[in-house]
Amino acid sequence: MNRLWIENGTFVTMDDNQPLVRGHMVVENDRITYIGEAAPSPAPEGAERINGRGLVFMPGLINTHAHSAMSLLRGYSDDEALQVWLQDKMWPMEGKFNDDDAHWGNALAVIEMLKSGTTTFVDMYDRMPILAKVVEQSGMRGVLTRGVIGLCSPAEQTAKLEEAKQFAKDWNGQANGRIRTMLSPHAPYTCPPDYIERIVAAAHELNVPLHTHMSESAAEVQQNVNDYGTRPVEHLDKLGFFSRPSLVAHAVHLNDEEIALLAERGVAISHNPASNLKLASGVARVPDLLRAGVTVSLGTDSAASNNNLDLFDEIRIAALIHKGVSGDPTAIPAIEALRMGTVYGARAIWQADEIGALKTGMKADFIAINTEQPHFYPQTDIVSHLVYSGSGRDVQHVWVDGRQVVKSGVCTLLDEEQIMAEAQRAFEGLLAR
Amino acid sequence: MNRLWIENGTFVTMDDNQPLVRGHMVVENDRITYIGEAAPSPAPEGAERINGRGLVFMPGLINTHAHSAMSLLRGYSDDEALQVWLQDKMWPMEGKFNDDDAHWGNALAVIEMLKSGTTTFVDMYDRMPILAKVVEQSGMRGVLTRGVIGLCSPAEQTAKLEEAKQFAKDWNGQANGRIRTMLSPHAPYTCPPDYIERIVAAAHELNVPLHTHMSESAAEVQQNVNDYGTRPVEHLDKLGFFSRPSLVAHAVHLNDEEIALLAERGVAISHNPASNLKLASGVARVPDLLRAGVTVSLGTDSAASNNNLDLFDEIRIAALIHKGVSGDPTAIPAIEALRMGTVYGARAIWQADEIGALKTGMKADFIAINTEQPHFYPQTDIVSHLVYSGSGRDVQHVWVDGRQVVKSGVCTLLDEEQIMAEAQRAFEGLLAR
Repeated sequence: MNRLWIENGTFVTMDDNQPLVRGHMVVENDRITYIGEAAPSPAPEGAERINGRGLVFMPGLINTHAHSAMSLLRGYSDDEALQVWLQDKMWPMEGKFNDDDAHWGNALAVIEMLKSGTTTFVDMYDRMPILAKVVEQSGMRGVLTRGVIGLCSPAEQTAKLEEAKQFAKDWNGQANGRIRTMLSPHAPYTCPPDYIERIVAAAHELNVPLHTHMSESAAEVQQNVNDYGTRPVEHLDKLGFFSRPSLVAHAVHLNDEEIALLAERGVAISHNPASNLKLASGVARVPDLLRAGVTVSLGTDSAASNNNLDLFDEIRIAALIHKGVSGDPTAIPAIEALRMGTVYGARAIWQADEIGALKTGMKADFIAINTEQPHFYPQTDIVSHLVYSGSGRDVQHVWVDGRQVVKSGVCTLLDEEQIMAEAQRAFEGLLAR
Repeated sequence: MNRLWIENGTFVTMDDNQPLVRGHMVVENDRITYIGEAAPSPAPEGAERINGRGLVFMPGLINTHAHSAMSLLRGYSDDEALQVWLQDKMWPMEGKFNDDDAHWGNALAVIEMLKSGTTTFVDMYDRMPILAKVVEQSGMRGVLTRGVIGLCSPAEQTAKLEEAKQFAKDWNGQANGRIRTMLSPHAPYTCPPDYIERIVAAAHELNVPLHTHMSESAAEVQQNVNDYGTRPVEHLDKLGFFSRPSLVAHAVHLNDEEIALLAERGVAISHNPASNLKLASGVARVPDLLRAGVTVSLGTDSAASNNNLDLFDEIRIAALIHKGVSGDPTAIPAIEALRMGTVYGARAIWQADEIGALKTGMKADFIAINTEQPHFYPQTDIVSHLVYSGSGRDVQHVWVDGRQVVKSGVCTLLDEEQIMAEAQRAFEGLLAR
């Protein structure tokens, strides 16, 4: 049995019963078996001992909306309108992607996320077995789904859906349960209603959750009204989408009725503030969603629209923007923003009993932050410091499922230098083709 | 003569004549004497040679609004309304500050700024000789001003103004010209009109610029209208404020006429987006200000309202927020945000002929960023990467006035460990008193 004993650490647990622990944590194999102020008694035999002095430990961050392969397009197109960026820049380049490109783009995203403290991520894209293998190798935790766009022939629609189902079946529960799967129509505006209904039926058949993009831009909401006579929330609801556990990304443009319906249906939101700002999509009504009881988690979206995968950035932006835009400086206090990146993230992917907090019996997914730096001084309110002053670059060590996957800032299971070099080569290949 | 020769570097110069140089830069004493793609010829004799591979060099960042000593209050009070935060939390604690507190708060801010790539900062506070000595020792460049609050007896007003004048006289041009000074009424709402007029007269007498807080919150603008029958811009203009070179912080709440007047008077703005969001002050009309020809620079404000002094954060937030709030994804493109943190910052403090760009003849204030990290890959648009993906933690080396003040992430002229420990002690002392 692998045992790890962290001594003299400061633990921001995200567990309301003991939010801050200055003391000890013991991990046995993939689980936390002890956390408390007193030293564990008896002392865990044969444990690897880590001196936690100068480190703050907290749950690994959960990124609930990403498109990892698109990291290959970071910086390729910025400061353009959503539809121009998507249709004129992203789609033509993505159309050229081959398996090799997908592999290195995915690997680049995974090392960036791990090094910046994200231990679990949701990813919607294609060529998903390639990503699943990277996730398996990296030690990371992922909820993966083959997103399907239905603007194609019925035969192609069927082929894509079969591919998505096959992936969801093949990989659900793999890698010691670190990989789970979902099904995903890309968006209401890229999937005809009957296709969405088929995907919903398949999700029931496979007993997996659903993920989609929804109400990211005002134009898209208007198009939904024009095409189907309803706004996207009601539209998806009528198609039975919310009869499955559902995670929807963006949800920027919602009216009060839609918020109430999302709350009633138990739909979780992936709020992507940096991407929404950068693409000028707007500012989601997060304080209203939280007040209504909706689970709001955080996502980076892709590195092509952000342009980084540091979830600490999303946490800080979420804590700042809703104050500034609402005029209420008490909106989204620091602890609530941190919850969005941890416990609420875990809820949004139906794993709150396993991850998102440091608690006896839960999975040992956690990170250690080097707080011996000027921007963490004086050491007053640790949660405030993490949210308003912290960064993924402050992450020193990362463990997932009890295994150390980042040690002193370096990925232990993936070759960072090779991945950066190959990603560069792949990008230059895309430009040349 | 001290000579430095950087070979094989990538230089983001912020000089429109050659924005991107892949090549060489030579520094002699405090000045850049060569920058170009070809190796310098003849080779600079006896130069310290630096291999620039894997590094991006750019001008040091310019933070045009800070209150360094307040770093001691980082995390002491968050998520409160501006007036509550200021009057109930900050002022009582600041009232307890002694020279020792000011020293360690200032030193803490200076090491945080230097390590994150800021080479020049504007600071308005009291006990300014203490800060000036820290700046002198640190090797940093500063524009320092004793901010005065006039809500006190005439005798106290006079004493404060004399202190401010004395400081401005004593320190202007000190530390090889690295320190310059200004005069500063704290704000129109904390200084009676006749006191502002006396400060303006003193600025003329000493030939120094003026700095103040202006139109940070809507409430403050309304109070100005109630008290004086005019909005703050017209009020200050009538008091002769803009007859001096002027830098105003915040300027969140402006109407079209005020923007036109600021442009006409050549007033520079210090835009503090993180602080304005955190205190729910609102979002400044930066795209409109830039269109009107106003110089807009960036400031962190204090670590008590931000809560970090990483100017890369302000650059990214400035690039993101104005897109999201205006609905225009082309608002504040990456390069414009980077200008706000460099060349526009230099303009805002009337030093654009000396700093803010890498150019032959200019002061050697520059930073080196480690781009051999996943979040900078693939290496496509460097400016986009710096703005949307960069962080102060990526800064590896910093030079000011040709002298290396940060080497491999560590301050060379200040003792970081001592400063963090003493800042902690000072904060705990404040709590105990």
